[in-house]
This record gives sequence, structure tokens and C-alpha cells, in this order.
Amino acid sequence: MYGPGDVRVENVPDPTLKHPTDALVRVVRACVCGSDLHPYHSRPASAEGSPMGHEFIGVVEETGSAVSTVKTGDFVIAPFAFFDNTCDFCSEGLTTNCVHGGFFSTAQAEAVRVPRADGTLVKAPVGEDSALLPSLLTLSDVLITGHHAAVTAGVNARTTVTVIGDGAVGLLAVLAAKRLGAEQIVLMGRHKTRTDLGLEFGATDVVAERGEEGIAKVRELTGGHGTHTVLECVGHLPAYEQAYGVVRAGGVISRVGVPQYEEAPVGPSTLWRRNVTLTGGPGAQRGYIEELLPEVLDGRIQPGKVFDRTVGLDGVPDGYRAMDTREALKVLVQP
Amino acid sequence: MYGPGDVRVENVPDPTLKHPTDALVRVVRACVCGSDLHPYHSRPASAEGSPMGHEFIGVVEETGSAVSTVKTGDFVIAPFAFFDNTCDFCSEGLTTNCVHGGFFSTAQAEAVRVPRADGTLVKAPVGEDSALLPSLLTLSDVLITGHHAAVTAGVNARTTVTVIGDGAVGLLAVLAAKRLGAEQIVLMGRHKTRTDLGLEFGATDVVAERGEEGIAKVRELTGGHGTHTVLECVGHLPAYEQAYGVVRAGGVISRVGVPQYEEAPVGPSTLWRRNVTLTGGPGAQRGYIEELLPEVLDGRIQPGKVFDRTVGLDGVPDGYRAMDTREALKVLVQP
Repeated sequence: MYGPGDVRVENVPDPTLKHPTDALVRVVRACVCGSDLHPYHSRPASAEGSPMGHEFIGVVEETGSAVSTVKTGDFVIAPFAFFDNTCDFCSEGLTTNCVHGGFFSTAQAEAVRVPRADGTLVKAPVGEDSALLPSLLTLSDVLITGHHAAVTAGVNARTTVTVIGDGAVGLLAVLAAKRLGAEQIVLMGRHKTRTDLGLEFGATDVVAERGEEGIAKVRELTGGHGTHTVLECVGHLPAYEQAYGVVRAGGVISRVGVPQYEEAPVGPSTLWRRNVTLTGGPGAQRGYIEELLPEVLDGRIQPGKVFDRTVGLDGVPDGYRAMDTREALKVLVQP
Repeated sequence: MYGPGDVRVENVPDPTLKHPTDALVRVVRACVCGSDLHPYHSRPASAEGSPMGHEFIGVVEETGSAVSTVKTGDFVIAPFAFFDNTCDFCSEGLTTNCVHGGFFSTAQAEAVRVPRADGTLVKAPVGEDSALLPSLLTLSDVLITGHHAAVTAGVNARTTVTVIGDGAVGLLAVLAAKRLGAEQIVLMGRHKTRTDLGLEFGATDVVAERGEEGIAKVRELTGGHGTHTVLECVGHLPAYEQAYGVVRAGGVISRVGVPQYEEAPVGPSTLWRRNVTLTGGPGAQRGYIEELLPEVLDGRIQPGKVFDRTVGLDGVPDGYRAMDTREALKVLVQP
């Protein structure tokens, strides 16, 4: 990516092992993320450009001498962050905050160097031709991110839920909330093909209106009080404003869209007076992949339905464009 | 209160019952709150003035026809909010957000009309001459508020704690954190007589420095990472800035000082990237009083030690001044 709207496909040197804890993974499927659209809009132009992509599944090609849990030929899922899975934070389940961790940023490519491969990579018993590849790929980011929103918000059978955003994360937050037992799930989104998929994933109500009008609609659907939990899956300030508008007193807003702002209202009239909790963050927790993988493998959940277009590497620039114009919901990349 | 620094003692008509659910309570003890100092600094001057005070214990003088749980002569504790204790929010324990609720604002007085008396008032088996009165009075606000900070932050035996603020709420947040089992409790405050009381209540470390220096000190005390929980008991923006500076990744900031700001940093570089949760709010939950009262009665906890000056109603203006200049920690009012 060289600047706003400027995505190019280039030949770069193949990645190589740098540390004994590294693995090289040949990418079988990658994709374009809603969060990639933020730099696509606003990253300053640069002569060097930056590689992009943080979601991939693939086959291990080579491992460093210290890697013991995966070997050449293994089919693996990589979360969007890497981590050692042994530090204090990882032990508490917070692998995105590993003291030896970081985030992937070169996955829209043919191969990726994976640091801390033992901690990071999760094996999946499938072949490269599996029909499950799209669903497995969601374990790299959008499914675990939607799940993180639902888990951190405390969704359960007794909580009502609003999901803000009908992108892939929002739709999979619906799926995650349904899976955790929520009985009322209001999806705020205005793209009918997407919200239809949300209904399939378990949304009970769809609110297409935004801002004050949308807030009034959600309150109307919830006895005037709003929902116990709000899963904010966008990242822009107006989405956050909707979130505190629809959250019930004593409720929780979980933000998993990367916030495109630093300052926001959190004082007496928005959060504090009503004892509203604000939580969320990056959700690349290894434990989520381990928890959800069996349900993907046996088809109980089908998160791969969020992919509605497939491109080769050459098609990635057009994939960004298609997601940006909302022509495509989520673009699968098959290198 | 007629404006900044302008507190007057006046004769006003006695309160009377307005609704069948009201009770009249003769105030035996009231006090001046740290949160009263916010309007003492910045409330616009007015010709009418506003009554003040939201903390009191006393004796029921008269009850409305619908009141059944308290009767004339009962000694009662009033939390700083009133509530019906039967609505959906009250049933969930969130009595501060009762649909029929509100906050007291006339308690620095001889008598108070208590709406929703059945829901609001908690009986205490003591006489007007009990030595426990100061400790019982803390159940009206400062103890339950400190407890609310600790509970909402999720303090337990496995969490480290920073308490920001050495006012009465901060010191009782220390006591509450200790009571919930926390083994490391860092108290940030710079008034030695107060932090000494904090040490008596269970603080393990005191950090007198503020801002970046204070943050560095807390991190040094906690292996570089900060504490799992931060109890923000001040309400000014710099205290919040300290809070996100000392909170551990994956940790929780609970704010119980009334925020004197609406906007604050909550984006990727302060909360989001590190999965930090922001919680808190007004903590006048009836359940807290019921939970803590037995321990006050049997002397297991002695929160009344925060009172270091007693005045009559005539001494209230000087009580504000003494708390504002930090000459007094917390001023007891004996009408």
C-alpha cells in the first residue's frame, strides 16, 4: 500500500527464517480485512509503501531449530498476532499482549515468516482442498474478533445484545452472541444482503437507521432501556456514539473495531452516571481458536459465509476497492 | 451553597411527607463529601443557592401510609441515592439506576424527606449514642463507593491494585480491596497523615509522586507492567491519566470519583490496544450496605477512622473550607 487507494502487487524477496523460533508458512488463503480499509482511506502516501495483510492459513514449509509443535507439511491457522504462549500475559489468556508478541502485516502474500511459531500456530487436520478453508480462515481474525467482543461484553443467555456494524466482524459477533446463548440480538446495519446473513447467523432484529434515529429504534425494541451488551464492530466515532446511546444502564460496550479516534465521551452523561463499562481490544487470543476450531470442523458454525468474493494476488487491489465500495462483504485471497 | 466557596447555614421550612412512600428522617450524623468540593470550586453563583449533602444516618420520625419496612424510632442508614428496590435495575443490584430513583441533595440539615423509604433505608440496631456512628455513616457513601470501585474492578486475591487518591473514598477503596483479598495495594497520594491511614487500612505501598513520575514508580513496584486493577477515586482528568498509565494490559480501571470531564482518551494508545476495561459509576447499591453492615457492627472493619473533625451545622461552611485546604480529611456533621 503506497497511499490512500493505492494498492500494488509486487515481487519481493521470499521471507526466510530469522530466529530459531520462526516458521515459514506458505499462504493457502488470506483475505482483506475491514481494518485494512482504515489505512486504505487515510495512510499518508509513501515512496516505499507497506506490505499488508494479517489473516492467513497455510502450510508450514520450514521451521527453525527451536520449533517443536509444528513441522513441515502441517496445515496451520495463524491468528493476526504472534505470541510465545508462555509469558504471564499469554498464561492469562491475553496472547495479544504477549511480551514477545506483535501483529502480522505481510499476509497478503505467497508466504509469511511466523515468529514464535510454537506459540502462534494452531494445527488443523485438513487438506489444501478442504471446503472448510473459508471458515477456517475466519479463525485468523474476524470470527475470533467477533467472539472477543461477545466474551468481553459478558454475553450469555440472560443478556440482550446490540451489534453495531454489518461488516464481517459484526456478522460474526452476531454468530458468537447467538452461540453464547443470547436470545435477543439487534443488528445495526444498512446493507440488506449483509443483514440478511446476520439474520441467518442469529440476529433477531435489524435496525437500518443510524444516529439518534437508530438509537431510538433499538430502545423501542428493548422496552426503552437499550441492551445489556453492545458489540461495537466498526471503529469510527459515530459507531461508539451509537454504542453509548443503546447500552442499558449497568451494561457493557465492547469495542473490537480498531478505534479511529483517541478521545471520546466517557464522562457522567455518557458512561459514568449509568455505570456503563467500556471494554474490548484486539482479540487474537489463541484460546479462542482452540475453542472454536472443533465447531468449525464439524460444521456446527459456518462463519466462512462472510466471504462473497475470491481473488488471486493480482486481484487484491480490486478486492480493496470492492470492499471499500461495499460491493463485496469480505474478499478471500487465493495466492 | 450560593457559589464557589460560598456556603451558608440557613433556616428553611421542615421537610414534610409528600408521597405515601416517603419517610421523614431526623439526621443524627451527616458529613461533607469530597464530591461536594467540585461544586464548591466551580458551581456558578446563584441568588437562590442550593441545599447540599447526600450522606446521612438518623432516626425515622414519620412514615407515609405505604411504608412498611421502617417505622418511627428506627435508626436507619440512607445511601446517597434513593430507589424502590423492586424495579428491573434494582433487582439486578443496580439501585443507583432505579427507574424511580434519584440522588439526595439536602442531607447537611436537621431532617430529610426520604422518597421510596422501603427501598432506600436500611435499619441498624444501634442507638443515637453508639460509638459506631462514624463507621455507620460511611455506609452512606464513602465506604460503599470505595467498595464499588473494588468490586467493579474485579479485585480478588489474584489481582494487584492501585488506588488513586488519598481522600476518604480512596482510603476506603484500600480497605475494600484488602477485604476482598488483594495482596498488593499501591496507594497514590501525597498527604502523609492520610496515606498513613491507608497503610493501616491495608495499603502495601505508597507512591507520593504524580503524573509520569508516579506512573514510573508504580510500574517499578509491579515488575514494569502496572496493576491488574486501578481504583480511580478522584474524578479529575489527571487522575484518569494516571489510571491508564499504571494499569496492566488486560486490566481494569474503575472510576468512582465523579468525572469532572466528559471527553477523555480511550483509543488504541491508552485503553484499546492493551485490552484495558473502563468501568465504575455511582455505587449506592443497597446490597453493599447489607453486605458490609455486619462487619461494621462487629468492628471487623473501622471505616469511621476517615473522620478527623466534627462540626455542628453552624460549622459546615468551615468544614468545607477545611476539607478544601486538606486541613481535614473528612468532616462529620452533628446537627
